[in-house]
Amino acid sequence: MAPVRIVPAAGCPSSLERAIRGATHEALFVLEGVVSLTLGGSSYLLTPSDYVNIPPGIPHGYEFVDHRGKLLSWTFGGDAAEAYVRLGKPYAGNVYSECSDAVDWTLLDGEVDTELVNTSSRVDDGWSSKLTTAPEGVVPFVLAASEGERMIAGDQVYTILGNSTHSNGVFIALLTEGPIGMPIPRHRHERVTELFHCLNGQMEMFAGDGFLTLDPGDFLHVPPKTAHSFQMKKHDTRFLGFVTPGDFEPFFRYLCVPFDGYRYPLVPPTFRFDRVIQHLSELDLTILERPGGPPPQAAHE
Amino acid sequence: MAPVRIVPAAGCPSSLERAIRGATHEALFVLEGVVSLTLGGSSYLLTPSDYVNIPPGIPHGYEFVDHRGKLLSWTFGGDAAEAYVRLGKPYAGNVYSECSDAVDWTLLDGEVDTELVNTSSRVDDGWSSKLTTAPEGVVPFVLAASEGERMIAGDQVYTILGNSTHSNGVFIALLTEGPIGMPIPRHRHERVTELFHCLNGQMEMFAGDGFLTLDPGDFLHVPPKTAHSFQMKKHDTRFLGFVTPGDFEPFFRYLCVPFDGYRYPLVPPTFRFDRVIQHLSELDLTILERPGGPPPQAAHE
Repeated sequence: MAPVRIVPAAGCPSSLERAIRGATHEALFVLEGVVSLTLGGSSYLLTPSDYVNIPPGIPHGYEFVDHRGKLLSWTFGGDAAEAYVRLGKPYAGNVYSECSDAVDWTLLDGEVDTELVNTSSRVDDGWSSKLTTAPEGVVPFVLAASEGERMIAGDQVYTILGNSTHSNGVFIALLTEGPIGMPIPRHRHERVTELFHCLNGQMEMFAGDGFLTLDPGDFLHVPPKTAHSFQMKKHDTRFLGFVTPGDFEPFFRYLCVPFDGYRYPLVPPTFRFDRVIQHLSELDLTILERPGGPPPQAAHE
Repeated sequence: MAPVRIVPAAGCPSSLERAIRGATHEALFVLEGVVSLTLGGSSYLLTPSDYVNIPPGIPHGYEFVDHRGKLLSWTFGGDAAEAYVRLGKPYAGNVYSECSDAVDWTLLDGEVDTELVNTSSRVDDGWSSKLTTAPEGVVPFVLAASEGERMIAGDQVYTILGNSTHSNGVFIALLTEGPIGMPIPRHRHERVTELFHCLNGQMEMFAGDGFLTLDPGDFLHVPPKTAHSFQMKKHDTRFLGFVTPGDFEPFFRYLCVPFDGYRYPLVPPTFRFDRVIQHLSELDLTILERPGGPPPQAAHE
């Protein structure tokens, strides 16, 4: 599997370029600000927490509309993220530098999986509607903030932004949110990689052989064979997760029940960890600790 | 002076009401989500970090457009915030409860400084433009994210969202942002109250007789005669400040120099604390510590 690459992009209002990636599947999540996106033949006005699925071969481009634009871009399967290495320059600052230097797009050549396409000016006939439900299959789409397939496990709401079919099994993208709670049981996967990006509140994570705290903007990459766990330490904690490959998706469907709401409720439904245990043999999951119980024990070694 | 009241409002998409406050000056700042605002005769699509000035007597109302709407509302001078006490019910949750119960607006009567006005349906002829520069005087306005009068002091950017003339001297509203830095010198005011609402990053504050940490969403009220100081502990820390009364505004103009940029630069300009010292006798300011120097000393007792 090609490495997962994560590129945060932030900047001042800037001109639009459109690109096609031949082999790279890209996903965008808006962290801050307002962003104008072209995707296929449509234009969208993105605001925070919107999610964009960009399969290989789909022309796309974006422009920062205000001075607060901040996007997360995940790329899977190709080397399109190499474009940023080619186009970028070393920079000692920790917020973007304000400059009017044009980007030298000729630094990209056939070796990078990014083909620039001619920019036709956007016809200003309004914005396309963002979706509340993702379509089926490997198609481009824009999901509005908080929308997607919502499920609940105990007091935590899981929203699937991109399911396994959206990327041909390469990854799933999930938003998880909840109140202060217990740690989930420590566990590990043999093949599955998990990425955690804290958006709000605070999480305490166990990973490998120790604990660490994720505050908003902090990111943790958990490779296969790494024991890990998370605990929400503040109310309204939210994190974005990417799980790859996508065939781990059934885990979340066993763990959760469908949920019509948008925010975690005062009285949670029954926690269905029993269904995970029942289907454990199908899953790339080794549970290292009893759920909710303090004494760690190897349950599936 | 009437007490400063701060009411965070968060909710699911909901219907619009319009109200007039006879004596209360209100200011709104968008923390999250997308909000539709009517202000006077105009409609605005608010996104995070937008600022709204609502003088007494101006009809206004808002509607949450997505499921992430979160506003801060400050009210000065009247008791309009009492409306929330009348309309609200005790609630044990820590995120909003999803329900379709209508608000019983008849619970408001002439004793609360909020007069409801008939809602004429918004004519959907697009949105009014948000401003990049605030107008002069006690007038309603909507300032787009990051806009306002930008100034810089050392490596910290100060953006005046509402100056003293916008509220007839009642308050000023300021956005402050910067990288990890030194604490500002401990100081106190005899008449001035300062409110600190952390938006991003992390601040360590000294207030009264001890230190405390503000993470995003945390809020500190510093009454007059309280020794205080702040230090930015993470890069890109941002906080919203309200200072009342507004006649402390010249302090920021002595401390800062005008700044055309939007984000703090890699190389800061000269720090003009010397001008503060030069004008100390005009200001409600007692400096309790040498700037940047470790040994505290009373400089103006």
